[in-house]
Amino acid sequence: MPVPLAPLAIALGDPAGIGPEIVAAAWAARITHNLPPFFAIGDMRSIRGVWDGPVVALGAPGDAAAMFPHALPLVQVDDPGEIIPGAPNLPGARCALDSLEIAVGLTRTGTASGIVTGPVSKAQLYQIGFTYPGQTEFIAERCGISGGNVVMMLAGPTLRTVPVTIHTPFAQVPHILTTDLIVSRARVTARGLQRDFGIAAPRLAVAGLNPHAGENGTLGRQEIDVIIPAIDILRAEGIDVTGPTSADAMFHATARAKYDAAICMYHDQALIPLKTIHFDDGVNITLGLPIVRTSPDHGTAFDIAGQGIASPAAMIAAIRMAGEAAARRARG
Amino acid sequence: MPVPLAPLAIALGDPAGIGPEIVAAAWAARITHNLPPFFAIGDMRSIRGVWDGPVVALGAPGDAAAMFPHALPLVQVDDPGEIIPGAPNLPGARCALDSLEIAVGLTRTGTASGIVTGPVSKAQLYQIGFTYPGQTEFIAERCGISGGNVVMMLAGPTLRTVPVTIHTPFAQVPHILTTDLIVSRARVTARGLQRDFGIAAPRLAVAGLNPHAGENGTLGRQEIDVIIPAIDILRAEGIDVTGPTSADAMFHATARAKYDAAICMYHDQALIPLKTIHFDDGVNITLGLPIVRTSPDHGTAFDIAGQGIASPAAMIAAIRMAGEAAARRARG
Repeated sequence: MPVPLAPLAIALGDPAGIGPEIVAAAWAARITHNLPPFFAIGDMRSIRGVWDGPVVALGAPGDAAAMFPHALPLVQVDDPGEIIPGAPNLPGARCALDSLEIAVGLTRTGTASGIVTGPVSKAQLYQIGFTYPGQTEFIAERCGISGGNVVMMLAGPTLRTVPVTIHTPFAQVPHILTTDLIVSRARVTARGLQRDFGIAAPRLAVAGLNPHAGENGTLGRQEIDVIIPAIDILRAEGIDVTGPTSADAMFHATARAKYDAAICMYHDQALIPLKTIHFDDGVNITLGLPIVRTSPDHGTAFDIAGQGIASPAAMIAAIRMAGEAAARRARG
Repeated sequence: MPVPLAPLAIALGDPAGIGPEIVAAAWAARITHNLPPFFAIGDMRSIRGVWDGPVVALGAPGDAAAMFPHALPLVQVDDPGEIIPGAPNLPGARCALDSLEIAVGLTRTGTASGIVTGPVSKAQLYQIGFTYPGQTEFIAERCGISGGNVVMMLAGPTLRTVPVTIHTPFAQVPHILTTDLIVSRARVTARGLQRDFGIAAPRLAVAGLNPHAGENGTLGRQEIDVIIPAIDILRAEGIDVTGPTSADAMFHATARAKYDAAICMYHDQALIPLKTIHFDDGVNITLGLPIVRTSPDHGTAFDIAGQGIASPAAMIAAIRMAGEAAARRARG
């Protein structure tokens, strides 16, 4: 009989955001959605304040799987004091960072089979000395990987996109977009599609940067000078790549069916189509890490936190995707 | 009894493209889709080669309305000789340009109530001395309007978008994006929504340029320096404007319901969401002209021309939209 997979670790994110309530809602929907076992890491009061269901503080994280059918298992971090939904503060940011740190540690040691991270407030984190662009880079470094070598993929039921450049001002994109960077992102993406999604021969579609993918250079030369050379390198490595494709022709249903991931040149090129179609159930999955990590593709939503109206759909999708990826990795 | 509206003039576009067959298909579907009367302008043989239905060459364009119930009425231009679907040539480009010129003339004189333009090949047109960026600018000049003062709106059943900059290389966008340009495009858009769509108090949503709309300047300053001043001017004029909004949060169904048109900073920001959702039935409507003009939002599709597989959905939508706009203008 195979050893059951360890549960997933879910860092609740900022306790004043919607993280606690959507994780509780996901636990309540665990049977309907056939979710794998998981436990939360964060502050008990932040859940109790927004949810009436059963929560159990774990004496040892290893007890999570046994408790999961009966109550939402929780690993308590240092008490941040009273947290009011919608009113983030610095103790709450510390709580979020502690949760993340513990989640990574428990996953690195195998007590958890993967991490799902709830939304945090970067503005708050920066005030307590957090120096990373985001949770992804923090996790990467804790895993001994350079943040520049992991890939953020946005994944919904009918579309996966990867931004080659991410939080880069628009005007800087043409300056930091290089052949090497595209090749690196695409390689990690292809490997991630194999390892975490079970796609043996991934098909990548590479977007152009300019309108109409530059129209043979008349509307911009990055396709010719930067993107096509990257595609040539990837093809020489045996990766199935199409492009550069006019970005406005890549994302309708017929086009989406022809590839497994779109390699996009900048943030909004990847995020606009993904969120247009999958606003409520998009998942952010980090490829290239030694561990599985996903998160719902939305923010803290402080404006609606604690009101019971936040949709848990993306959190549920993130938990399911992490569980599936962890199971694939366990099978080898 | 009111005088019936004049029929619409449809320039068939490049005769080697899908224009002739989708216009014929639209005529065949005129009853199902309750389309207003229209007549085609172009080459008889290019229709006969791809369609078996009835076509009638008009002695005078004024006869079109009477013939419309029985056959597709056609104004024949100078014979371009034999045209093979999928094989564009210079006589075909001349035919397309003549069709466009006649369509504008007949609409300016009131023989037609509006223009619908089929797709053309700009590469071919440039070889016969056409010097405009596209059909839109040609029409604008024939109407005595600077091409820079008309607005291209992409309109589908659930989304309308306006690109402030259009066929501009990505790297040049931050340099040509000005407060004045945004204000100008938004004003014409608001007026067009009133005049052609019957929306008394149009709601405009203005997108940011940078990821997350610049995050208060940390991811780019165009929102602060260029876009917000434009929004302030528009609001002072009484126009209902929101923004700048993070572009990736503007286009899901809930967000789309809150505005009548999205003012986008660059080509793909407008075209990606529109074509992701409305690839088959998007319409390009030109606002700011003294006449009504629409076109299907797709190209010549030379690769499938003459095969009977091109969808007429966008042409049908363009005809309907032109008819509705013409009727609104006629009612005053």
